[in-house]
Amino acid sequence: MSERRGALILSLPGSEDLAASIARQLDLPHGELEWRRFPDGESYVRIHDDPGGRDVVVVARLDHPDEKLATLLFTADLVREQGARRIGLVSPYLPYMRQDMRFNPGEAVTSRPFARWLSAAFDWLVTVDPHLHRYASLDELYSLRSRVVEAAPALAGWIAREVDDPVLIGPDGESEQWVGAVAAFRELPWRVFTKKRHGDRDVTLQLPDLEGLTGHTPVLVDDIISSGTTMAEATRHLLGAGMRAPLAVGVHGLFGDRARDTLKDAGLSRIVCTNSVEVPESRIDLTPLLAEVVGEWLRG
Amino acid sequence: MSERRGALILSLPGSEDLAASIARQLDLPHGELEWRRFPDGESYVRIHDDPGGRDVVVVARLDHPDEKLATLLFTADLVREQGARRIGLVSPYLPYMRQDMRFNPGEAVTSRPFARWLSAAFDWLVTVDPHLHRYASLDELYSLRSRVVEAAPALAGWIAREVDDPVLIGPDGESEQWVGAVAAFRELPWRVFTKKRHGDRDVTLQLPDLEGLTGHTPVLVDDIISSGTTMAEATRHLLGAGMRAPLAVGVHGLFGDRARDTLKDAGLSRIVCTNSVEVPESRIDLTPLLAEVVGEWLRG
Repeated sequence: MSERRGALILSLPGSEDLAASIARQLDLPHGELEWRRFPDGESYVRIHDDPGGRDVVVVARLDHPDEKLATLLFTADLVREQGARRIGLVSPYLPYMRQDMRFNPGEAVTSRPFARWLSAAFDWLVTVDPHLHRYASLDELYSLRSRVVEAAPALAGWIAREVDDPVLIGPDGESEQWVGAVAAFRELPWRVFTKKRHGDRDVTLQLPDLEGLTGHTPVLVDDIISSGTTMAEATRHLLGAGMRAPLAVGVHGLFGDRARDTLKDAGLSRIVCTNSVEVPESRIDLTPLLAEVVGEWLRG
Repeated sequence: MSERRGALILSLPGSEDLAASIARQLDLPHGELEWRRFPDGESYVRIHDDPGGRDVVVVARLDHPDEKLATLLFTADLVREQGARRIGLVSPYLPYMRQDMRFNPGEAVTSRPFARWLSAAFDWLVTVDPHLHRYASLDELYSLRSRVVEAAPALAGWIAREVDDPVLIGPDGESEQWVGAVAAFRELPWRVFTKKRHGDRDVTLQLPDLEGLTGHTPVLVDDIISSGTTMAEATRHLLGAGMRAPLAVGVHGLFGDRARDTLKDAGLSRIVCTNSVEVPESRIDLTPLLAEVVGEWLRG
């Protein structure tokens, strides 16, 4: 048995900033993971620190997961082979959570095998607000130990600091719990759109009662900004009701092909999200919340 | 136990042509694997055939493997979950074979974990001339059952048909066995360059004795065309010795960034490889050889 040594933070390419910040807050070394792609598309991975006997924390933004999967698994395999004590994964956005059931015959329920691969490679996982829709918790999918960080306090803090007289707005009923939690942190007023069904496929948003809040600045809050269509529709309703131009605040800014145009065209004044995904809109730093939980793991 | 049903050929995106040809030669159905990428970079996979009780053969070109890995593993997982009897992988180019030892401390020996992932996902594997350098056979790496197809008869056939008075040339000593095997199929003359070491890093190629062969067309033969530098140097030597402009014939045309320029600038008259990788130079069809071995597996 080798002696237990101090923990080591590593980062996948594209997540160096997150890892450096977490390492700084925990006063831990941010090791060097060398990575490059050979001309034939294969990955080259090399670790310049000795992980022997250490807890190793791999920090990896996992949006666009397919292109990162091999590098992530090679890294975990390498670190384990070189004698790491335990290997943790800090992935602020956890992908493949939305494919959580077979909607049509023969479809892959990709959330399950993806969870198996990560569970086999790592000992523990920290993520932020995973899209738990049909799963009650990550434990239904992931066999490793996991901790979910809630971005709500970071979102609430940013909104309270940056927005005058905010009223938080959930763009649809599914966001109710979520928006309420963010609002609670700073005792902010909040409302939620409801969906009104007019037929099989015809669903419209129903504006909530905004009496007494018309002078406030609406802040649309959601966990994932993806296509932007629901937020855009909510924006048009709010503007139609004479409200100020709303802001959109999301946890995970995935931004599909035309999402930014869709949102801007609808009349949003600003779009902001956390740094779980590396996008220009990342204004809300999750690393204080992540560092706290990583620190608890490492002491455990 | 469900009844054993007829085999099914599936293809990953980019390998439909290979799968269709193998299916046609074996008189088997080429099923439909639906695949698309969501805007957030996740894969969607759906199979439109029932694999229950069947042998399923997944045909996948695996050059540029990282971008294909998730789709490949999702497909195998889906097909197994849906009750396939056995799952085979036909990957004419097997990647990650060149990272077969730790050249520097802390390097990932990626050939090993990659082999583990494929071995866990599939029951058997058919590939063509894997780059076995430090490994004596695939069994040292892969725990699934595997069969290696030799491209030599296909290369020899193409050369005998297309080239007047060919003389096969191995660009360095490592290609000796390989070039000899190709030549033997059609009783063609062959020679091999040797490497001459002038110091620690200074290695030059030594032209073989070409007496009696100066009127022949030199055909440089190698397993992988990657950077093209060795073939280019061999070409310059051959031209310097007054030979006709040589052709280059390779099994796996990976073609690194400037490989085509390097080869053309050296004075090669033509570059040809098999269809193990989808490149404009693919003129030699491997599917008759692949179909033969796949047929044996399916009957076994």
